[in-house]
Amino acid sequence: MYSSSVHDYLRDHIRTVPNWPAPGVQFRDITPLLQDPKVFRVLIDAFVHRYMDRDLRPDVVAGLDARGFIIGSVIAYELGVGFVPIRKKGKLPFTTVEETYELEYGSATVELHTDAVQPGDKVLLIDDLIATGGTMMAGKKLLEKLGATVMEGAAIVDLPELGGSHLLQTVGKLPLFTLVDFAGH
Amino acid sequence: MYSSSVHDYLRDHIRTVPNWPAPGVQFRDITPLLQDPKVFRVLIDAFVHRYMDRDLRPDVVAGLDARGFIIGSVIAYELGVGFVPIRKKGKLPFTTVEETYELEYGSATVELHTDAVQPGDKVLLIDDLIATGGTMMAGKKLLEKLGATVMEGAAIVDLPELGGSHLLQTVGKLPLFTLVDFAGH
Repeated sequence: MYSSSVHDYLRDHIRTVPNWPAPGVQFRDITPLLQDPKVFRVLIDAFVHRYMDRDLRPDVVAGLDARGFIIGSVIAYELGVGFVPIRKKGKLPFTTVEETYELEYGSATVELHTDAVQPGDKVLLIDDLIATGGTMMAGKKLLEKLGATVMEGAAIVDLPELGGSHLLQTVGKLPLFTLVDFAGH
Repeated sequence: MYSSSVHDYLRDHIRTVPNWPAPGVQFRDITPLLQDPKVFRVLIDAFVHRYMDRDLRPDVVAGLDARGFIIGSVIAYELGVGFVPIRKKGKLPFTTVEETYELEYGSATVELHTDAVQPGDKVLLIDDLIATGGTMMAGKKLLEKLGATVMEGAAIVDLPELGGSHLLQTVGKLPLFTLVDFAGH
């Protein structure tokens, strides 16, 4: 949770698209946060200010494909650390570790280059939104396979009713930092 | 073309993966540029320094899905302008314009939110690599459909033998800025 004024300011710039990508789903569209220069800066700085603290400063920022790339790379640059992409299967050319997780229908696989992090690295894991938490949990497992520690997961939006943030914090033992909560799907 | 020392420094950090994603292709992997904090900063600053000039400063940075997001968003933040994603079909929730282009086998479609840019906006269009130029040409057409002007296309890598950069500059009348050239595929 961030200060309520920044929280509300960012929330007011998230667009809700009804019935997308399926009937009954209220999609939380973060693109308006990016296209306004001031809102974009407030958004990024909310993360940067937190992770500049000496005890929360990561060695590496990992971003989840693809909206996690948009904010993760800027946060990495501002903190002066490296950025590593965690990608959907088939996109990374070098040797990888991979992790498969369940979706509502079927499954998905994500990959990480084996040289993306070093054993002992403290990693900040970033996505735009936490829904069921499956992608972030898979990303955490990938980083741990390479001996890194995921110090925190961060996202712009949490949808707590979908249970992902609860699952990540309890089963995954992953501290989370999110800026805006929305009830419902 | 950037100064030769920066050019060589960045080139030395691009990994060539042979026979990926298909036999005979030499894939130019930019992920090592991102994961080293200093290289990442030199890379981003090469773009930021150019586009800080008063006459080259864009109103908006548009990034192509998905590696274009990684560098485009940082450049936008540093320039103090907004960032808009151009995405593969089916990823953007709001109303879009779309453009289909030919690939070696089949075709691809990219989309842009209709409110992503305003008529008259000067846009900098960013991807990681220019090969056949199809994606960047499609992105330019999308931005022009909404009344914006694409002032320049920028990428880390140009593969001039694939003809994309020539096509974009001649048929597309799009000025280009790239940091590293590689012969061959």
